[in-house]
Amino acid sequence: MNSSKLNELDAWQAARLIAKRDLRAVDLLHACLDRITERDDEVHAFAHLDRAHALMQANALDRGPVRGILHGLPIGVKDMFDTIDFPTSYGSPVYGAHRPKADAASVALCREAGALVVGKTVTTEFAYFYPGATRNPNDLTRTPGGSSSGSAAAVADSMLPLALGTQTAGSVIRPAAYCGVVGYKPSSGRVPRAGIKSLSETLDTPGGFGRCVRDVALLGAVLTGDSRLSTSPEESAAPRIGLCRTPEWAYTEADTQRAWDTATTALTHVAPALADVALPDDVPDLVALQKEVMAFEMCRALSVERLHHRDQLSLQLQAQLDSGSVISGGTHAANLVRTEGARHRINALFDRFDVLLAPSAAGEAPVGIDATGDPLFCRAWTLLGLPCVHLPFTRGSNGLPVGLQVVGRWGEDHRLLSSAQWIYDRLTK
Amino acid sequence: MNSSKLNELDAWQAARLIAKRDLRAVDLLHACLDRITERDDEVHAFAHLDRAHALMQANALDRGPVRGILHGLPIGVKDMFDTIDFPTSYGSPVYGAHRPKADAASVALCREAGALVVGKTVTTEFAYFYPGATRNPNDLTRTPGGSSSGSAAAVADSMLPLALGTQTAGSVIRPAAYCGVVGYKPSSGRVPRAGIKSLSETLDTPGGFGRCVRDVALLGAVLTGDSRLSTSPEESAAPRIGLCRTPEWAYTEADTQRAWDTATTALTHVAPALADVALPDDVPDLVALQKEVMAFEMCRALSVERLHHRDQLSLQLQAQLDSGSVISGGTHAANLVRTEGARHRINALFDRFDVLLAPSAAGEAPVGIDATGDPLFCRAWTLLGLPCVHLPFTRGSNGLPVGLQVVGRWGEDHRLLSSAQWIYDRLTK
Repeated sequence: MNSSKLNELDAWQAARLIAKRDLRAVDLLHACLDRITERDDEVHAFAHLDRAHALMQANALDRGPVRGILHGLPIGVKDMFDTIDFPTSYGSPVYGAHRPKADAASVALCREAGALVVGKTVTTEFAYFYPGATRNPNDLTRTPGGSSSGSAAAVADSMLPLALGTQTAGSVIRPAAYCGVVGYKPSSGRVPRAGIKSLSETLDTPGGFGRCVRDVALLGAVLTGDSRLSTSPEESAAPRIGLCRTPEWAYTEADTQRAWDTATTALTHVAPALADVALPDDVPDLVALQKEVMAFEMCRALSVERLHHRDQLSLQLQAQLDSGSVISGGTHAANLVRTEGARHRINALFDRFDVLLAPSAAGEAPVGIDATGDPLFCRAWTLLGLPCVHLPFTRGSNGLPVGLQVVGRWGEDHRLLSSAQWIYDRLTK
Repeated sequence: MNSSKLNELDAWQAARLIAKRDLRAVDLLHACLDRITERDDEVHAFAHLDRAHALMQANALDRGPVRGILHGLPIGVKDMFDTIDFPTSYGSPVYGAHRPKADAASVALCREAGALVVGKTVTTEFAYFYPGATRNPNDLTRTPGGSSSGSAAAVADSMLPLALGTQTAGSVIRPAAYCGVVGYKPSSGRVPRAGIKSLSETLDTPGGFGRCVRDVALLGAVLTGDSRLSTSPEESAAPRIGLCRTPEWAYTEADTQRAWDTATTALTHVAPALADVALPDDVPDLVALQKEVMAFEMCRALSVERLHHRDQLSLQLQAQLDSGSVISGGTHAANLVRTEGARHRINALFDRFDVLLAPSAAGEAPVGIDATGDPLFCRAWTLLGLPCVHLPFTRGSNGLPVGLQVVGRWGEDHRLLSSAQWIYDRLTK
């Protein structure tokens, strides 16, 4: 195998070769580090990188027994996750070169499965909107999306096969869409958040990025502890697909509309059960609800930063915390109850469909790196806690990646991933 | 006022006096510190105490403007909450004298409201079962309950008016019952958990202790941000009360049965709507479900400790983590879905009742400090995420405190607290 291309291997392929000792972790890592050297001065995917430490981890894994399904795979970790061996800044000068006492639980689980951490990837400030330095590897004048900017860019640019992210509004699905990789946000509550900087009890969801569905399924199996995610049959049964334009459809651009037409046309020919579906009439405005829940909870979860480090926060974040501070606790309690009601009613949709197909973003990644684009098409699914997978399968009018997301029933991540694989195969082969 | 008794003031009374500048925070603190000096060599409520630092905080509060509804109140913080100015050990030698980078969000919220932190109170090891040194202040040969052992004991022994705790199985309600104080576990998801050591995504719930319902309501208003909790009318309307013996009734002892008879007899005469209620037949065994969810999630949330510090964990905790490691991710996913279903069905009970009355513990605090008693009567309510208040109102056959808990609808903590106040008044006046 041409070692200069090892960095382009899918994670599942590399893991298989390493487990058979047909590939050394250190050789895969070298290819990834070479790619990082070549590109990261322009892409800026990494906040903290430690080549020597990564090589030491790789050598140790090559010498030891195969630990698990991520054995020898180099991963990037969004700088919202605590790491014992890298600084952890949460994208903010408030934390500078903070060294946590321990790894986040999800990082420890990845290491237990044999992954090696190459570095911390750039996050927006506390995973909210103020951007880091990362640029879109497909077009350096454009945003990679956020908040998991560095993780999406590193995977898209073949610097790494896998990376961890988190989503509170649209921070996994949107950067996956803009960068053109597969992003996976698990069901709420299935991945331990211990050691991840908290913005919102209700919304924060750890997830990850890969370059194919099987790769995020591998990562998802480790994060959730559900081995069914990575052991689905090569070819699963055709899913029942609900086509859900969502109430925000009017905000889609021509590129997303073309992707929608392409996908639905292709699937109509092969999917045995496919139908348009709208959210029930009695469901409230989920986007407005998500925004209000997020503002209230961020204002409180980031109390230390709000009270003691305000001068080190961006104006955007200050404004967000201020907007949360004027929402009453009674309104918030009612919002949480309305959220529960919406979750229950939308769960019933999945009696008729295995998955929903929906927009991921308005269109291609916007020009400029002073903002990370709009999470509009992700807010409702995050509020509902439903598992989502972004599928990149086409290009927009400027040649940038465009795709759609597949949304599953809460707690049925294994079915979502096998359905996403089925759909992805139909859209890309 | 006799300054030697200032430590016995209810929090709401002390706060009112301090806000009017009729009482200095430093005088209240001195009374509390004197009580601690007198008693803590025997009770061992504190893991970390800093008198000079507490006095400095009190003096600053006396000099400054009134910050909020906890202004000048000395509080204890369970050693599961991060604090920037005290060591944080989580009840484990693994963390020794760890100094977190920042306060837990809930601690910051209490300080914002004017509270001063006197010290860190003893928790069992990582808030699981292996006990700390704390003894029951009512009888030093008995357990105070756990895991919030020090917080419950400190408030019961008039060392402090208020203290913070957390509940994953029965860690607020059970020590409140054994020590004879009011304990309040809010609805799941309403208090930010940022900076609290995590055991279980589904179950961990921050809460607190006081010596009357109004005091925990004050703390609850700060923790949830819902001012309705502390501003309920002096006399609210009579609640509709469901008498829920629970499926675990057979495990109650004579003391709890007598408390039940006392309470239901008293309430029957004055409560306009009172009826026995059973959990719906189609609800699964919630105690078994809670145990399995807790074991699976602890095994994963405590991954760092499980993988890298096993030799420093108690055998009890090792066994718990091992039991979690053999539960499959598929079983856990199904358990979460069953939990959601049970939450939904039990929510409907609250169409007929404002609150449920239920046992808090089997009976008086057991003899011995090598275990913290059984959280049996709390597991289901914690799994369901319902808000609970323990009311101490009688004594058992050995003269130790006995009471019952009041359980509210999810998200209706303000109604729970006003109902609990109404019931408490009828049982204690």
